[in-house]
Amino acid sequence: MARRTKIYEGKAKTLYEGPEPDTLVQYFKDDATAFNAEKKAVIDGKGVLNNRLSEYFMVGLEQIGVPTHFLKRLNMREQLIRRVEIIPLEVIVRNFAAGSFSKRMGIEEGTPMPRPIVEFSYKDDSLGDPLVPEEYVIAFGWASQQELDDIVALALRVNDFLSGVMYGVGIKLVDFKIELGRVYDGDFMRLVVADEISPDSCRLWDIETGRKLDKDVFRQDLGDLADAYTEVATRLGVMPSNVTHPSGKPTLIN
Amino acid sequence: MARRTKIYEGKAKTLYEGPEPDTLVQYFKDDATAFNAEKKAVIDGKGVLNNRLSEYFMVGLEQIGVPTHFLKRLNMREQLIRRVEIIPLEVIVRNFAAGSFSKRMGIEEGTPMPRPIVEFSYKDDSLGDPLVPEEYVIAFGWASQQELDDIVALALRVNDFLSGVMYGVGIKLVDFKIELGRVYDGDFMRLVVADEISPDSCRLWDIETGRKLDKDVFRQDLGDLADAYTEVATRLGVMPSNVTHPSGKPTLIN
Repeated sequence: MARRTKIYEGKAKTLYEGPEPDTLVQYFKDDATAFNAEKKAVIDGKGVLNNRLSEYFMVGLEQIGVPTHFLKRLNMREQLIRRVEIIPLEVIVRNFAAGSFSKRMGIEEGTPMPRPIVEFSYKDDSLGDPLVPEEYVIAFGWASQQELDDIVALALRVNDFLSGVMYGVGIKLVDFKIELGRVYDGDFMRLVVADEISPDSCRLWDIETGRKLDKDVFRQDLGDLADAYTEVATRLGVMPSNVTHPSGKPTLIN
Repeated sequence: MARRTKIYEGKAKTLYEGPEPDTLVQYFKDDATAFNAEKKAVIDGKGVLNNRLSEYFMVGLEQIGVPTHFLKRLNMREQLIRRVEIIPLEVIVRNFAAGSFSKRMGIEEGTPMPRPIVEFSYKDDSLGDPLVPEEYVIAFGWASQQELDDIVALALRVNDFLSGVMYGVGIKLVDFKIELGRVYDGDFMRLVVADEISPDSCRLWDIETGRKLDKDVFRQDLGDLADAYTEVATRLGVMPSNVTHPSGKPTLIN
């Protein structure tokens, strides 16, 4: 393979220059990190699973009219994405209390929210991605008020859809984070879901047993992370394979 | 069982006075009708499947904060529901062209809509539930402008969620209809999803094969309707049983 220009290397993914203008190649690594990279490990196969699962969720979102950066999966670990202007926010939607929210607010894990809560963290590793009020978002110019309104609406649509996907396979969508980016077409701009959607970026609990099927398995040493992600992929009929079905529909196991 | 007061008998369901004030018992019949009851049959087990599936979808909607009339399932064919003031509209959401829409608009079945289309039929069997512009809804006082806005927003949330549920099990949500009702709490009124959500009220196509898994199987003589509905229930892990799992979660087959 020809040498490629690396654009950005994150904790779990690397971005390379894409084959066409305005595209990038997103490579999914096996690296797992938690607590702002204080805890690290290599989880064999995680990148393959997340590449496949992120494709699956992004394709589903596109089908209901939520635009994403996803173009196509290239192979086991890489997908072709649109180059976007990333908004420096982690947009978090919470249906049940968990993680940092539970700690910060003194609300027990699993407590249902009065309604889905949309909150924002400023993407800055050196600061530990701090929670920020909407006021900061506008004041510091990370997004306009109109964009913020659109971001909340998009995040809630993603929540409804993903909640449905998970409900159909007996999983509770506790919370998730997405990133948004801007794409331009001449004078027109629109927001698209960027980054990834995977068990790295969602909290997923089995509805029956409460078993955690997300990165908390790693954060909290609850077992084998790849097993948990494979369980999610299997329930969704998503097989980590480098073959995309001609229909564009994920290949099914059964 | 004590004799009960019948409130209303429809084509596929009967409503009885409920055990507590402001409740009704909704009984699901095996009767199938199509083309405004010009075609009729009795499909053994259809009522049991729809009772169970409607429970499943309504419980899922409640969990994402979309209010419904559903209170609890009582047995194989009956569920306890809130008594609502029904808005005399069928609210139809279309993701792909099909059925009467395809015929009316000359758009081939399966053509994706530019965006999800929300449309209204006036519920009147003697008129064949005619399509009506929003203008009629307001002018004839079936709903206020504010209610209509809320109805559209609710219908689109139901669409996002149900699209997700179906996507998770390899099914395309082509279109569906819901009914809305008003419930009052003192001076407060809110809209809830009423009637049923089932393969009688949705068009569901297998994503891979295009196989129809909804009432079109009956309308178009494509095979055994109960088989098609059982396929949907099985994929969702919904077992027609009169046992509700203690968690309130539908009992899973596997």
